Amino acid sequence: MSKTTRRIRAVIEAFVIGSNGNPSTPDILQRTFQTFEINGDKGRHDSWGWNRFAKGTILEKKFLAERHVTFVCAIILIDDKPAILVPPSDIGAHLGRLLDHTDGTDVSFIVGDETVHAHWAVLAARSPVFRAQLFGSMSEATMSSIRLHDITPATFKVMLGFIYMDELPGEDESDDYSTEMLQNLLAAADLYALDRLKVICAQKLWNTVSVDTVATMLACAETYNCQELKNNCIDFFAVEANLKEAMFTDGYALLLLKFPSITAELKRRVRA
Amino acid sequence: MSKTTRRIRAVIEAFVIGSNGNPSTPDILQRTFQTFEINGDKGRHDSWGWNRFAKGTILEKKFLAERHVTFVCAIILIDDKPAILVPPSDIGAHLGRLLDHTDGTDVSFIVGDETVHAHWAVLAARSPVFRAQLFGSMSEATMSSIRLHDITPATFKVMLGFIYMDELPGEDESDDYSTEMLQNLLAAADLYALDRLKVICAQKLWNTVSVDTVATMLACAETYNCQELKNNCIDFFAVEANLKEAMFTDGYALLLLKFPSITAELKRRVRA
Repeated sequence: MSKTTRRIRAVIEAFVIGSNGNPSTPDILQRTFQTFEINGDKGRHDSWGWNRFAKGTILEKKFLAERHVTFVCAIILIDDKPAILVPPSDIGAHLGRLLDHTDGTDVSFIVGDETVHAHWAVLAARSPVFRAQLFGSMSEATMSSIRLHDITPATFKVMLGFIYMDELPGEDESDDYSTEMLQNLLAAADLYALDRLKVICAQKLWNTVSVDTVATMLACAETYNCQELKNNCIDFFAVEANLKEAMFTDGYALLLLKFPSITAELKRRVRA
Repeated sequence: MSKTTRRIRAVIEAFVIGSNGNPSTPDILQRTFQTFEINGDKGRHDSWGWNRFAKGTILEKKFLAERHVTFVCAIILIDDKPAILVPPSDIGAHLGRLLDHTDGTDVSFIVGDETVHAHWAVLAARSPVFRAQLFGSMSEATMSSIRLHDITPATFKVMLGFIYMDELPGEDESDDYSTEMLQNLLAAADLYALDRLKVICAQKLWNTVSVDTVATMLACAETYNCQELKNNCIDFFAVEANLKEAMFTDGYALLLLKFPSITAELKRRVRA
């Protein structure tokens, strides 16, 4: 198949979620079947979508819930040519296996009373902070053994697992990380500038949010510079029903005392 | 949200592709909206799907094309809780940046008249063949510089890019790899046991298949032990319309002469 004749067939459909939380079937359902030519016929893109999806008055009357409307759009690609499927990335699994042996490790860390061996090329690739340490002022002689103070052995090993495997160790097993471990990991990720690990910790912490924990979580997000978690916590806090519970927790008292800038932001939101 | 109350809302729908290649709207369209409880209420799974999707006689009459029916099933998850989205993996981009400098490289390859520097930890993690070479009989002294004979500098550099980045270099730019480069890469991936690279090459080669190229492609798949590509090529070859064109190519002549086992397999398929 040459570039200019590559075709993709797709069903595109969209509907609205009603104020009762159920999808609009078949009230507002638009569906189209199209064959797209890609890589050579860009003009056809004009025909995507719908000129008039639904009447504004109907949307307003039947589908407006809590000041927002939820649209759902799905694109289903249909391909009946036999395909060769590329397996998912395995680079994390490959690098992870390096951690199973000390063969070829060229740097070691002393954390608490444990020694952990690693490969500097991997560390330097993944963390700008390790890169600066390893390429920077440290000589070959001192590089071989680095003492760390601000991290526990358990947290360091989980962080190292993430650095090599690009996911948290043991995530496929169903036991979740404790809130304490996630907070420690967030701190470590901030210290070593592991941005994606920060967001992973933030997501896992956010999944456990409640009126009892939101104040402490917000303090943690502010301490370790995690903007995503901070924003979500403030939005959660600003909902009146949540505010009236969360304001009586110890975490809220500490938030008031230690983080005046957050207190000011919350005050603005609540008064708005 | 505790484990036992985690809820997922989903729209599940299925339809059939008619013999004209278009989806059945609204002839046969089943749609259901369900709220699933996960992690604690496994009994609810019973209610998935449809007891009676469509009458067999209708399917046969309206949707049977070329001895097969195509079903399309879509599951659309609906989640209106604000989320923290984890960015996609960046480990390949991180490791790829190691290739921009010679800082910290600890092995070099002489390919043709070029010298290419690399990090043995990455090579050993990704290729069992490199791992054996680097951990094996080679001493520290000889490890620093390895001469390669069976690969061109251009192919080696693209392979090295894949080893570090987990994708082919420059794939985001729209220029495709030549068939020759893909065949060379397939050979290199076979040599260094890079299984995922083999499938990527196979997929890209397969996307260009035609009656003019299928015989040569089949020979290439056989030479470099690429089962996925071999199977697809044989299926393509066995279609009568393709066979009657492909059998007059030079590639087919070489296939007959050099690969008796494939010739035998084709013969069985054509007579079946």
